[in-house]
Amino acid sequence: MENYLWIGFIGAVLALLFAAIQRKKVMSYSEGNATMQKIAQSIREGANAYLKHQYSTVAKVFAVVFVVLVIIAFASGGEMLSKFTPFAFLTGGIWSMLAGLIGMKIATNSNARTAQAASESLNRGLRVAFSSGAVMGFTVVGLGMLDISIWLMILHFGAGITDPVQLGNIIVMNGIGASFMALFARVGGGIYTKAADVGADLVGKVEAGIPEDDPRNPATIADNVGDNVGDVAGMGADLYESYVGSILATFALGACAGYGWQGMLLPMALAVCGIICSIIGSFLVKTKEDATQKSLLTSLRTGTYTAAILSAIVAAPLCYFILGPENNCWGIFIAILCGLIGGTLIGYFTEYFTSDNYKPTKKLAAASETGAATIIIGGISLGLMSTIASILIVAVAILISYFAAGGTTSILDEMGGFSLSFNQGLYGIGIAGVGMLSTLGITLATDAYGPVADNAGGIAEMSGLPEEVRDRTDALDSLGNTTAATGKGFAIGSASLTALALLVSYVNIVQDRTVENLNFTLTSPTVLVGLFIGAMLTFVFSAMTMRSVQTAAQSIVVEVRRQFREIAGIMEGKTDPEYGKCVALCTKGALHEMVAPALLAIIVPIITGLILGPTGVVGLLGGVSVTGFAMAVFMSNAGGAWDNAKKYIERGNHGGKGSEQHKAAVVGDTVGDPFKDTSGPSLNILIKLCSTVSIVFSGLVLAFHLL
Amino acid sequence: MENYLWIGFIGAVLALLFAAIQRKKVMSYSEGNATMQKIAQSIREGANAYLKHQYSTVAKVFAVVFVVLVIIAFASGGEMLSKFTPFAFLTGGIWSMLAGLIGMKIATNSNARTAQAASESLNRGLRVAFSSGAVMGFTVVGLGMLDISIWLMILHFGAGITDPVQLGNIIVMNGIGASFMALFARVGGGIYTKAADVGADLVGKVEAGIPEDDPRNPATIADNVGDNVGDVAGMGADLYESYVGSILATFALGACAGYGWQGMLLPMALAVCGIICSIIGSFLVKTKEDATQKSLLTSLRTGTYTAAILSAIVAAPLCYFILGPENNCWGIFIAILCGLIGGTLIGYFTEYFTSDNYKPTKKLAAASETGAATIIIGGISLGLMSTIASILIVAVAILISYFAAGGTTSILDEMGGFSLSFNQGLYGIGIAGVGMLSTLGITLATDAYGPVADNAGGIAEMSGLPEEVRDRTDALDSLGNTTAATGKGFAIGSASLTALALLVSYVNIVQDRTVENLNFTLTSPTVLVGLFIGAMLTFVFSAMTMRSVQTAAQSIVVEVRRQFREIAGIMEGKTDPEYGKCVALCTKGALHEMVAPALLAIIVPIITGLILGPTGVVGLLGGVSVTGFAMAVFMSNAGGAWDNAKKYIERGNHGGKGSEQHKAAVVGDTVGDPFKDTSGPSLNILIKLCSTVSIVFSGLVLAFHLL
Repeated sequence: MENYLWIGFIGAVLALLFAAIQRKKVMSYSEGNATMQKIAQSIREGANAYLKHQYSTVAKVFAVVFVVLVIIAFASGGEMLSKFTPFAFLTGGIWSMLAGLIGMKIATNSNARTAQAASESLNRGLRVAFSSGAVMGFTVVGLGMLDISIWLMILHFGAGITDPVQLGNIIVMNGIGASFMALFARVGGGIYTKAADVGADLVGKVEAGIPEDDPRNPATIADNVGDNVGDVAGMGADLYESYVGSILATFALGACAGYGWQGMLLPMALAVCGIICSIIGSFLVKTKEDATQKSLLTSLRTGTYTAAILSAIVAAPLCYFILGPENNCWGIFIAILCGLIGGTLIGYFTEYFTSDNYKPTKKLAAASETGAATIIIGGISLGLMSTIASILIVAVAILISYFAAGGTTSILDEMGGFSLSFNQGLYGIGIAGVGMLSTLGITLATDAYGPVADNAGGIAEMSGLPEEVRDRTDALDSLGNTTAATGKGFAIGSASLTALALLVSYVNIVQDRTVENLNFTLTSPTVLVGLFIGAMLTFVFSAMTMRSVQTAAQSIVVEVRRQFREIAGIMEGKTDPEYGKCVALCTKGALHEMVAPALLAIIVPIITGLILGPTGVVGLLGGVSVTGFAMAVFMSNAGGAWDNAKKYIERGNHGGKGSEQHKAAVVGDTVGDPFKDTSGPSLNILIKLCSTVSIVFSGLVLAFHLL
Repeated sequence: MENYLWIGFIGAVLALLFAAIQRKKVMSYSEGNATMQKIAQSIREGANAYLKHQYSTVAKVFAVVFVVLVIIAFASGGEMLSKFTPFAFLTGGIWSMLAGLIGMKIATNSNARTAQAASESLNRGLRVAFSSGAVMGFTVVGLGMLDISIWLMILHFGAGITDPVQLGNIIVMNGIGASFMALFARVGGGIYTKAADVGADLVGKVEAGIPEDDPRNPATIADNVGDNVGDVAGMGADLYESYVGSILATFALGACAGYGWQGMLLPMALAVCGIICSIIGSFLVKTKEDATQKSLLTSLRTGTYTAAILSAIVAAPLCYFILGPENNCWGIFIAILCGLIGGTLIGYFTEYFTSDNYKPTKKLAAASETGAATIIIGGISLGLMSTIASILIVAVAILISYFAAGGTTSILDEMGGFSLSFNQGLYGIGIAGVGMLSTLGITLATDAYGPVADNAGGIAEMSGLPEEVRDRTDALDSLGNTTAATGKGFAIGSASLTALALLVSYVNIVQDRTVENLNFTLTSPTVLVGLFIGAMLTFVFSAMTMRSVQTAAQSIVVEVRRQFREIAGIMEGKTDPEYGKCVALCTKGALHEMVAPALLAIIVPIITGLILGPTGVVGLLGGVSVTGFAMAVFMSNAGGAWDNAKKYIERGNHGGKGSEQHKAAVVGDTVGDPFKDTSGPSLNILIKLCSTVSIVFSGLVLAFHLL
């Protein structure tokens, strides 16, 4: 079976080829008139400048961690850490960075093109924006497959590791580089984009009363740059990490469950088929020239649902031929279905709680009638309440995939301890996560399309294109909010499954390495204390990222106020504001603020391990996974609902634009910004990074722990 | 040893006697002029009317639960549930209710007396208010001791249960009635008080621009009633539950640890000594006639710290004579110290994060410069960040008390499994919780004094007493905020320790009852799913209670607006507003909204148990304890900081009263209201109620669980 492991290359080549074709298609469109080109160029420059600075900051941190890893690996002669891990750390970081970078490059090249295409027709606008999203989506999965395949080849054929369990336990550590890079990209990009957004809105919209994206607002270019470095580059790195992480965790569990190479081949094959199904789905995304917004959504949904259904259909023969009935292949198939269906359901409920087509957000908008305080209380309770759906779906998915994959014949026996079927059940949870992400190519395309449409709208506004163009880009943008909600649902849901898979891998690896009799029972005080630390880490991490946004946003507020005050003629449109100053401030703020939370995610699990030992680490991972998941859902959904409640009011409900109700809703939206675009999505990465860090440093912790 | 168990009666009698003396002292003061008496009477009537309605609603729910318990107990012939439990459920509920009721009666009799006394001197005001708090504090501990002692006698001497393990496992279930009542009182009272407060502020302060407690505001009586039914009656029931719960949980653990009757006598004796030390401390609370606010605080602190230090000193001989060196008495003594010191430290850090004497709240007030949105973001991140102190203190307290009590000689062995020293270590965690609450008499007195001072201020304002009286009551009130923060720290800290003790008792009881080989390992899927459900329960419970406040507050807003609009002459002070309508609306809203969250706390653990089995329940209890603790700290501290940031601005900082900054701070304070007085404190009870419910229904769950 191990001879088929190269199939990952097929998936990688197909995905990257498809991305290249889409890129060519996008670049063949016109970038519009001189003003549009000039604005697009400013956004490109700002985004490139930020990423350059970000990468150089990250490079320093990577260098330090790399040296530490090399020392641990080589000083212990590979005992505490595989000698490959430091290098895998670097490559993972680089690929993840590339995934974000390529996505951002195409996004900054597509925004003016989308605006120009939208000035011709809604359908053309959709096609440019969606193609741009597809470049990102397929680059992410293509690079992911490439990374995994190359390392599989190096470890198996190069280093001659013939034991799948050993290989699984080494390769699962390779996720750390991608996770680490993703955290920097998400946190840094998230702080940048929200500092610019909050800053621009607070002074421009609230104080000066000028519209969003108005060229007189000095922070408007920074705001548009933010969409690209946060919502595109950050998201690309994030989902690269999710994709690779879910596959690697399943590798380790598959080997441990006794499935050997088959256990690794199945997630690879599933991913490759998912890429092919996503490409097929992409061809279905098109509408007639006189498309309405509703038909646009139908068109996007046709694409993603077709891809998911095809994947589900193909998964059956894959399970049958790779595992066979003697290995409970139908149980595993059910687990994959759980992932696919669970992801879709989470997406649906995310939409239910955040879209103004449904009751919760409508009721939230109504809370604006009694002012800012009640809309804040309402949004927080809406977000907290919305965790019920995601958590129940994930809980049911975990249980079904575990019991289906573990064989349901002797449930009570399995509960007794670490039997073989226990490990097979856990493999089911891992493969459910891979199933959920198998069609990431197309779901990410629909997600990444949003920021492009958003930017296109900004360019249309700033370059003074006719009202109807702005209406079209608004339609595209609003659609993007819906698809983004679905995309976030997938990311959060898969993160929880992957985190659990990594947690289990950690326990397997630790028990493999030690003769200590470790008590992972929940009532063990070290496990309990670990749980508390895990919850604390989630809360403190969220606090730090939110506070960072606030600090950076306040500096923008001060600067924008200064420009309005000191530069004569801005308000009359006679003088250009100094856009560059805001861009520079955001860059400085984001870079300054992103390091501490990212380091927290590395240092806390190591220190916890050194003091409490592996049992404390397991508690910590349990605590951070559960609270991190719940907080991520809460923050994303509260933020999304506030955003849409504001838009709902802007469409003329509850007093419409400019009313007191609208002002209250703007406060809600502003609070929601760091919730949904900085803290919330970063938590997905945090929970996986903690697990991977714990796995990588498990040798060190086992050797030196205090309790 | 069991012959000494009656000493609880000594404590009970002393505490109740002291409370009676204090009550007499308070009642001997004058209630002031006719206006003051009239207002005090309105508040009393509103509060009594509310409690009457509340108790009749609760009585119905209690009747249903009682019948269910009787059926389970008697149908199974006492197998699934002790036949005593249904009756203990009733008595616990009644005592808890009484604790709140007596506290509220004295509070509503003290508010006008405090205002009158404050018109003579600050010191006299302090003494009336503090004595009133002492009535509540010592009633709570006295009734608690009485309840426990009576049941000990009934079970041991009446029913002839001579095995301490069996008795411990039965009596631990007796906490359920108190917890259940407390949850209703906290949630119902919390909704009432915050609906009235938010409603009064939103229309009165924000829209109409009249001061707080202005008699022209139709919601002002309801607001003052709310202080009594929420902050007094709710808090009394809450801390009654905490006190009894921590002692009962330690009983069960002590027996299990092999300490027999000694294991029960120690927490009883500790509590009795705590009562005596608290009485001594109370005599130290007095100042000179020309007292300043600072000397007031010093005076209160002298009382509480003396009580705590005396308790610590007395605990040493108690441990020595009851347990003896052969039972690791010094280890247990260290655990008690951990509780006392931990509680004080949590109190200190709560103050650090919420008082405007320190940097965090000052920085939060500064965030008002950029508007409501940034002060909201700032408060949320402050609250999230503040969990770091409480969680680390609790974590260290757990570890030290566990290892000290479990014997530190063979740490690694202990980690291996359920050895004797494992259970002794867990007893250490339980007794730390008792230590933390041993001086509850006086800490609760300083806490309960706050709402009385608050009400006194309201009466002074409404009855037009001179400015200097209002200044004095403000000084008393502001001091009350500080002591309330300390009190909340104790409540939250002890809740986390008690919850863990109950969690461990649950595992012991379940393993005692079944031959099933239960896997409580954190990586077991049912435990993991349970963890998720626990986090979800915390989030959904918080969402429901917040939403209830919002719903009830919105009805008050509509009513107050209506009265301002329809009743001519209100604003000129010529016509009295219809206070009764707001009181009735709050009552209706609170009663309507309190049932669902309370039932959630009972139903979710049972359903989880019936589906996932005992391992899922353990996961749930772990999840709800950890997330509930973190959320409670977050919500209480964020709310406290917003409140004090607003007060800081009102004292002339950042633009002072009436400025845009002040308006922003009022939004923050309004959001913080349900955080700190409804959802946050209810979570303390939730986590213990879940544990007790799980213990009571463990027989049912073991018999019928699905997985």
